Amino acid sequence: MGRAHANALARLPMFFPDAPEVERHTLVGRDENALAEAADRFGFAHTATDWEAAIDAVDVFYNLGPNHVHAEPSIAALEAGVPVLCEKPLAPTLEEAAAMRDAAAATGATAGTAFNYRFVPAIRYAKGLIEDGELGEIRQVRGRYLQDWLVDPEAPWAWRMDADMAGSGALGDLGAHTIDLANFLVGEAVGGIDRVSGQLTTFVDERPVYADDDAAGEADAEVAEYRDVTVDDAYSAQVAYESGATGTFEATRVAEGHKNDHTIAVHGSKGSVKFSLERLNELEVLREGNRGYETVLVTEETDPYVDRWWPPGHVIGWEHTFVHESYEYLSAVAEGGSFEPSFADGYEVQKVLAAIERADERGEWVEV
Amino acid sequence: MGRAHANALARLPMFFPDAPEVERHTLVGRDENALAEAADRFGFAHTATDWEAAIDAVDVFYNLGPNHVHAEPSIAALEAGVPVLCEKPLAPTLEEAAAMRDAAAATGATAGTAFNYRFVPAIRYAKGLIEDGELGEIRQVRGRYLQDWLVDPEAPWAWRMDADMAGSGALGDLGAHTIDLANFLVGEAVGGIDRVSGQLTTFVDERPVYADDDAAGEADAEVAEYRDVTVDDAYSAQVAYESGATGTFEATRVAEGHKNDHTIAVHGSKGSVKFSLERLNELEVLREGNRGYETVLVTEETDPYVDRWWPPGHVIGWEHTFVHESYEYLSAVAEGGSFEPSFADGYEVQKVLAAIERADERGEWVEV
Amino acid sequence: MGRAHANALARLPMFFPDAPEVERHTLVGRDENALAEAADRFGFAHTATDWEAAIDAVDVFYNLGPNHVHAEPSIAALEAGVPVLCEKPLAPTLEEAAAMRDAAAATGATAGTAFNYRFVPAIRYAKGLIEDGELGEIRQVRGRYLQDWLVDPEAPWAWRMDADMAGSGALGDLGAHTIDLANFLVGEAVGGIDRVSGQLTTFVDERPVYADDDAAGEADAEVAEYRDVTVDDAYSAQVAYESGATGTFEATRVAEGHKNDHTIAVHGSKGSVKFSLERLNELEVLREGNRGYETVLVTEETDPYVDRWWPPGHVIGWEHTFVHESYEYLSAVAEGGSFEPSFADGYEVQKVLAAIERADERGEWVEV
Amino acid sequence: MGRAHANALARLPMFFPDAPEVERHTLVGRDENALAEAADRFGFAHTATDWEAAIDAVDVFYNLGPNHVHAEPSIAALEAGVPVLCEKPLAPTLEEAAAMRDAAAATGATAGTAFNYRFVPAIRYAKGLIEDGELGEIRQVRGRYLQDWLVDPEAPWAWRMDADMAGSGALGDLGAHTIDLANFLVGEAVGGIDRVSGQLTTFVDERPVYADDDAAGEADAEVAEYRDVTVDDAYSAQVAYESGATGTFEATRVAEGHKNDHTIAVHGSKGSVKFSLERLNELEVLREGNRGYETVLVTEETDPYVDRWWPPGHVIGWEHTFVHESYEYLSAVAEGGSFEPSFADGYEVQKVLAAIERADERGEWVEV
Repeated sequence: MGRAHANALARLPMFFPDAPEVERHTLVGRDENALAEAADRFGFAHTATDWEAAIDAVDVFYNLGPNHVHAEPSIAALEAGVPVLCEKPLAPTLEEAAAMRDAAAATGATAGTAFNYRFVPAIRYAKGLIEDGELGEIRQVRGRYLQDWLVDPEAPWAWRMDADMAGSGALGDLGAHTIDLANFLVGEAVGGIDRVSGQLTTFVDERPVYADDDAAGEADAEVAEYRDVTVDDAYSAQVAYESGATGTFEATRVAEGHKNDHTIAVHGSKGSVKFSLERLNELEVLREGNRGYETVLVTEETDPYVDRWWPPGHVIGWEHTFVHESYEYLSAVAEGGSFEPSFADGYEVQKVLAAIERADERGEWVEV
Repeated sequence: MGRAHANALARLPMFFPDAPEVERHTLVGRDENALAEAADRFGFAHTATDWEAAIDAVDVFYNLGPNHVHAEPSIAALEAGVPVLCEKPLAPTLEEAAAMRDAAAATGATAGTAFNYRFVPAIRYAKGLIEDGELGEIRQVRGRYLQDWLVDPEAPWAWRMDADMAGSGALGDLGAHTIDLANFLVGEAVGGIDRVSGQLTTFVDERPVYADDDAAGEADAEVAEYRDVTVDDAYSAQVAYESGATGTFEATRVAEGHKNDHTIAVHGSKGSVKFSLERLNELEVLREGNRGYETVLVTEETDPYVDRWWPPGHVIGWEHTFVHESYEYLSAVAEGGSFEPSFADGYEVQKVLAAIERADERGEWVEV
Repeated sequence: MGRAHANALARLPMFFPDAPEVERHTLVGRDENALAEAADRFGFAHTATDWEAAIDAVDVFYNLGPNHVHAEPSIAALEAGVPVLCEKPLAPTLEEAAAMRDAAAATGATAGTAFNYRFVPAIRYAKGLIEDGELGEIRQVRGRYLQDWLVDPEAPWAWRMDADMAGSGALGDLGAHTIDLANFLVGEAVGGIDRVSGQLTTFVDERPVYADDDAAGEADAEVAEYRDVTVDDAYSAQVAYESGATGTFEATRVAEGHKNDHTIAVHGSKGSVKFSLERLNELEVLREGNRGYETVLVTEETDPYVDRWWPPGHVIGWEHTFVHESYEYLSAVAEGGSFEPSFADGYEVQKVLAAIERADERGEWVEV
Repeated sequence: MGRAHANALARLPMFFPDAPEVERHTLVGRDENALAEAADRFGFAHTATDWEAAIDAVDVFYNLGPNHVHAEPSIAALEAGVPVLCEKPLAPTLEEAAAMRDAAAATGATAGTAFNYRFVPAIRYAKGLIEDGELGEIRQVRGRYLQDWLVDPEAPWAWRMDADMAGSGALGDLGAHTIDLANFLVGEAVGGIDRVSGQLTTFVDERPVYADDDAAGEADAEVAEYRDVTVDDAYSAQVAYESGATGTFEATRVAEGHKNDHTIAVHGSKGSVKFSLERLNELEVLREGNRGYETVLVTEETDPYVDRWWPPGHVIGWEHTFVHESYEYLSAVAEGGSFEPSFADGYEVQKVLAAIERADERGEWVEV
């Protein structure tokens, strides 16, 4: 994450010269040696192990740490009037997320949640179609995020599999992206999510900790111990929106053959769109009056952000979403304006995630 | 449906010469004039408006009528020792379906439910992979059936939108296919469905009855009245299998751009498969050790049923599933054996459909 | 081929009741025992080993024999006033093809060449778009026919690999289809093919004749001898049309991974279309004003021939093209009219094939 | 091009820290004002309008100018011992390209031709498969480069349409990429190209020069004059390799619906690969023993260059090819080694392009 954001900042001057000038001032971390090396590589002038001091020293704070260090430093920064862009999900608990949202509301400093997929040109193009009414009344949303890195039961245990440290598993890590993307695309049209049902599943209950990390996965690697997996390998949810529209969402880390397969589809009374992150330069569009989906390569000069990059047909990648995000965020900071997705947007996602967990525990639909 | 089955019977001798010889004896219906014309076209020697008499006259009974005439004649036939192949879903109510299942159990006559998608070569090939353990332990199933014929709110009202006549909407009509296909593919591996949650949605509450049927859909067509839609336009469900595997299912009649888009995907601990009815000659297979899905054209001599038809690469269509189905069913009848999907299989699907409806009404997960 | 046509005739009454009534009268062949069995299976009343006698006995003659028996019986039939539908390519030599064309011109009997791919609904739909000017002025055509059955150098020798018996290899067998399909789609718009360049290649110069045919391909199969392959495994050609439009064509029997992959693409000044035989229910259409290709499932009631079959989204297969072909051909016979593709159309294709061979021999572009 | 290379240099330190350190020293151009602005944006310390002086001042020279300024400065630099990376195609005439090749041979300075598509991870992965013999003996290559920016006859005239300035049209601009990519992938296996046939076509003979450039393409834009198009809008070629393998190549600027659709396919006696630039993170692979193409997302840590970027499944874009190219080129410079594609490689491509033109003029196959 740090690398993706550092790269984004580094690329702004050449491609977004109208973005505010950025100095990569202080890189915060725990291990001084590692910090020095990273700062050198990522172009930071200073390093710090004390985030409080660092916040005093900077004009903008990117909080890219693990979930459990999102709340306290972000709130402190906002209270000090320092704008914050915080990685998703906002916090491991809904309470902390609420505190962050409140801190953002109480300050004039620009607060943003880093849902980078909102900044894919094809997604922006889809959003434009929906806003212009080209899909008609929105009825159904379908989002899936499929990965395969936990298919193997012998894949090593990691902190992301621990409920205390990670909050949830596929739900928080992947589901957060899907829920936010759906909110972005259809939220204005269908309102918030009213009610959800949920199912969280863990297929592999314990995983090995290897004696030697680097040997993990090798056939003869020595297993030091087995530790419990206390989060979900996969979740699914059904949702009902205020307008009466419905949605189905799903993510899994055990779908063999899917690396980073985040797809979202929207059906309206006049048309449909389909998007896949693995082909992020494309959007499938069913326009009113057409008979089938049109495969649109969203790489025209007139497409969102594309004129900043390359000629038509020259595809961009995953990392470009971070450049667009920083461009928008820093521009908002410079203008003293607000940024979307805001902390309030991040909190809305968190509320849905919490509701899905609650629905799973209770075995019933719950209000968000 | 009648046409698809009549065609299947007519094609057996040329392509499945080892199938029992079939005489298309009596065509049953209500309107004598229409019957005569249909019998002539579909190659039936006799017609009848009285199904009881017809059952006396035949050796095998194909019950292809609407759902509400499935139970009584099928049970009567079975009680008379006449084998029955009945269209899906088995019955509009679970009670009737149970009675049919019991009648089948009490007789020696072969009873079958006409879930024709079990007889797609690509599906059989997938089933073989799963049986051979090539996907490993089955963890997740995902089925969707998307259609678009009710996208337009002015699409005409029909009996299929009435709960009394049709039972349910997308759920019974499309969901039955998906649930059965999942049972066929993974049922042996993961057991039955334990629990379900469900959501049934009607997006258009009333639809026009046009003064002149033929003018329906034209811009200036005169609407005689509006009638209530009392079934679902779309459903979704989450399911938990006995083994701990999970599934998500969904169908809709309002997905613009999707004509008959029935897809099913299965993920196991070693591999995955994906199938789409609109490309029914293909199967996407993620094999252990491979990096991506392999697009298999299931048209080799060694593929199920394919040696009966054409050389490799010469694709077959939807209707061929009915030929395979009749071949298997009639062969079972001739041998006095049982046939799958049986009435018991049809009843199992029905139980799941009923549970999904119940789950939707109660807003909670229910036992199947 | 015989099976595909017999099946087509058998299916007409149920699906094309307006087609002329057909009696499968006499099946002609060499081996009386095999004939009797085939006649029984394919529904023929009589058999004959003497084609001259058979022609006297029938009203219509389907000449489905190997290429070297196309000319004499077809000409005899036409001279006797018996309509002939002849399999493609018309003849092994251009001279024979010319004689056939002339015989057809001299008689009132309907003569047709059996290029069945003209009767794919998606191809007809594409043809309609081109006729309606939706692609604008046609500029480029691209056709490829890829198969893989000769990839393995140990695949057995067959008569199709002998120049005397087969004329040419991939060129005549596969290229004939592509050239005719291109003529059908764009011929009216761009005129005939003026000039061609060509390349014929044989990758495997001799192939085994196995002692035991059935063991062919098995690792330890005994090879009786090796025989020369005297035809092309693959060809490619560049063509210039009268209008100034251009084309590139190619076929191969050694493209690993391609079973029956016949594709054709047309680019005009306003739009483009792409078709693939392995997905024959689909057409990719780039319409003026759209940004990408639209994947059209050509299965609507309004699509060519589709109303005769199944509801929207219910796909048909390869064999249906033969039913459409026989429907059109027999209707033309009944009306005493002409049929396209005619013998003259078949001759045009043959002329192009001959020119491609000539161009390859001479190493230069040649006039057709 | 300048932008793509400047960006590549700027990104090396963060992602390829083992690359030589680079100072963007002097930016050369004609217009001092434009230069100053570009230098500022692209991070150059100095500017120059005199390339000779600039060459004296730098350690490495990137020649990114139009084709007609490739030869003289590149040769001068090489003679001065300054390494040169020159954009493709090497020169507008074969003579100049030969002089460049000779200059490179006569110096110790590293000379490279900037065929960036050699540096796509999926292409490198394909190259590895071919080198490892996984496709067996290579038999057929097929390359196409389809664009649509000249579909409209009213698209404005530009220097690229003038033979004196541009050499050729689609052939030199797009064909050069395809020929080089084929050489890279299969050159070692099949040797050089022996003979070619060619067809160059111009569909629109003259194009408008608009009174106001910015208004070009608008319906009411005033046309100042019409100028002749003296290069090809499209070319096709057939080629014969030394080994007996064959190839077909094609490019067009008038293929409606194709933005930057560069595809290449290779068939061997054991397998096949297919690549498309519009989906540059993917490779279609037909492996021995498999039944269909496997869609490989070439984004694993073990894939070429991928470990430098992002986690599995996080796609990269077109511009990354330039980063890889500069990494390899500058590393070669630092080590005093050679670089591929070299000037000799660039010359080989040029020879083929010239042969295709000659073949077109003569209407016959010509030796390369």
